[in-house]
Amino acid sequence: MIRAGMVSSSIAASLRLMLQSVTEPTKPLIRAARRLPVNRTPVWFMRQAGRVLPEYREIKKRYSLLEISAQPELCAQVTLQPLARMPLDAAIVYADIMTPLVGIGVDLDIKPEIGPVIASPIRDRAGVERLRALEPEADVPHLLETLRLVRRELKPDQALIGFAGAPFTLASYLIEGRGTRTFVETKALMYGESGVWHDLMSRLAGNTISYLRAQVDAGAEAVQLFDSWAGALAPNDYAEFVAPYSRQIIDGVRPAGVPIIHFAMGASTYLPQVREAGADVIGIDWHIALDSAWDIVGHDRAVQGNLDPAVLLAPWDRVAERARDVLRRAANRPGHIFNLGHGLHPTIPVANVERLVDFVHEQSAR
Amino acid sequence: MIRAGMVSSSIAASLRLMLQSVTEPTKPLIRAARRLPVNRTPVWFMRQAGRVLPEYREIKKRYSLLEISAQPELCAQVTLQPLARMPLDAAIVYADIMTPLVGIGVDLDIKPEIGPVIASPIRDRAGVERLRALEPEADVPHLLETLRLVRRELKPDQALIGFAGAPFTLASYLIEGRGTRTFVETKALMYGESGVWHDLMSRLAGNTISYLRAQVDAGAEAVQLFDSWAGALAPNDYAEFVAPYSRQIIDGVRPAGVPIIHFAMGASTYLPQVREAGADVIGIDWHIALDSAWDIVGHDRAVQGNLDPAVLLAPWDRVAERARDVLRRAANRPGHIFNLGHGLHPTIPVANVERLVDFVHEQSAR
Repeated sequence: MIRAGMVSSSIAASLRLMLQSVTEPTKPLIRAARRLPVNRTPVWFMRQAGRVLPEYREIKKRYSLLEISAQPELCAQVTLQPLARMPLDAAIVYADIMTPLVGIGVDLDIKPEIGPVIASPIRDRAGVERLRALEPEADVPHLLETLRLVRRELKPDQALIGFAGAPFTLASYLIEGRGTRTFVETKALMYGESGVWHDLMSRLAGNTISYLRAQVDAGAEAVQLFDSWAGALAPNDYAEFVAPYSRQIIDGVRPAGVPIIHFAMGASTYLPQVREAGADVIGIDWHIALDSAWDIVGHDRAVQGNLDPAVLLAPWDRVAERARDVLRRAANRPGHIFNLGHGLHPTIPVANVERLVDFVHEQSAR
Repeated sequence: MIRAGMVSSSIAASLRLMLQSVTEPTKPLIRAARRLPVNRTPVWFMRQAGRVLPEYREIKKRYSLLEISAQPELCAQVTLQPLARMPLDAAIVYADIMTPLVGIGVDLDIKPEIGPVIASPIRDRAGVERLRALEPEADVPHLLETLRLVRRELKPDQALIGFAGAPFTLASYLIEGRGTRTFVETKALMYGESGVWHDLMSRLAGNTISYLRAQVDAGAEAVQLFDSWAGALAPNDYAEFVAPYSRQIIDGVRPAGVPIIHFAMGASTYLPQVREAGADVIGIDWHIALDSAWDIVGHDRAVQGNLDPAVLLAPWDRVAERARDVLRRAANRPGHIFNLGHGLHPTIPVANVERLVDFVHEQSAR
């Protein structure tokens, strides 16, 4: 016998399900970013499209990073290379963090073994004032076209991630002229010319908002704000000189409606401040155990990480042991995206990378 | 009227005082390291004898680091240079962390702007087995003579600190052949050839014990174990591959009877493990607030730190603000040695360094 109450409750459930199928994401990576249940933990790797792949190294023999970026078909191919080999849950658009600076005309080169080298480092107000606002469709058309191309090629369960370097990281390159271990020029400007510093960060933050929103318009289903060098800072300096701009970017990108991943490398000692910047997903590097980190950022956020990429240089048993440890600490709670604590090193055997993707999927199946 | 009990109690107190004057250290730095009350917080700086001083740069025009180290009179002069300018509470012997490796015949050079470069990096068992035991009097006589010379020149309240690079840091140079950002060769050996790794670390730890004990015999009143690159490791790797050797060294140096300072740079997320290694004083880098760090290492230990050296590039007001913040967090509790969170950068204005010494002494006077 069917009672009226049962019918109406089952109708409501059906309606809720229908509604969810409209509003709830289906791709595992996006579901995890929203802390929705998943059948298995989604996995992708920073620098998955890169020198760890022999087929990428072939392309790099003929083209530089910037040359690849300038050819959307080729760039889409490079972006998709790792997904052709492994059942990764996301593609991340192949680009350099300096792309939006190239777009507004900053004279720079990406040199092998060195990284970005800026022709005229910025150390004063005049230099900062020369940084104009980014107009994505005009300034980074190839990147946007790449995103459109890649999006069309993805399988239904694969997500497309856009990304941007965070203002502190970009500022450090602009000021130092290249990578640095000491950040002395960056910090000298930050402390000594705080007005210039805040102007620089504000311009970079504004451009990062336009840049990430344009990526979403072009098909990115999640975006990662990548602060490679945040770890150079003391907690109080991060709070004063950097965190406000992370927050500004996250607030500015929020209306685009996609999950925002915030990875501040080396920030394990000021995760509460990273949390406050407001991202949906907090990237965790390998300097802290994943469960400790998650306790600090709070279980109302998703986390991404955090295997030391160098573990992938080890024999498989060690890789499995350490990957299992990360998964054990995540404990299949909703909201874990498996990743490394930093990018893949070029010398990592690709076989270990492929095996790790399967291992994560199998071990986390629920 | 004087009662018998009062007399005997006052005699006991006098005896205790006399005994204390024999057994209790009088130098502020040693007192702080033992968590005894001090009149003002002692201060010294990592790399205080170095390029921040114009008079050192003059000497460096004529002699390399290794050439200075080979001449005890000159090396003592360099060690004492900063104390001639500023009322520092300690001299730290001028040497390179590679000195004990040079002593046992490892072929290496210290190159300007690069640092140590090893002629034949060690990547296998045969390489490790070539590392022989250090015999300090025979292998590092100049360093020991420098310590004896410096000790004679110090004022009664100035302490002499000896130091050694920790095994992980030395191992990373030996394996990589030079400084590295990624530690991929080091970690590949650590994970892939764990037996070879442990043999290497064990040999380095044994040599470090002899090296530090010889420095104490030659006059060092405290020693610092300096693990510059510990921060490359995940907490569980530090526990498995490094911490046992830190503990072994600290246990081995303990009978020498001087305070042991343990500075593991970048270890803010695994300070509990650094604590367990057993040093009297835990060095804190600038990635964590001093009070938070002290709470983690425990108030039964002294702490040393932790101003970001780059703050000294700032206008004085900023330096004062940040130095005051460190002192406020230390709160004049017994057991704080003021220092930077890492070594002085060569470009720091020496006037700021001098002013900081006075500022710390004045602000911490009690």
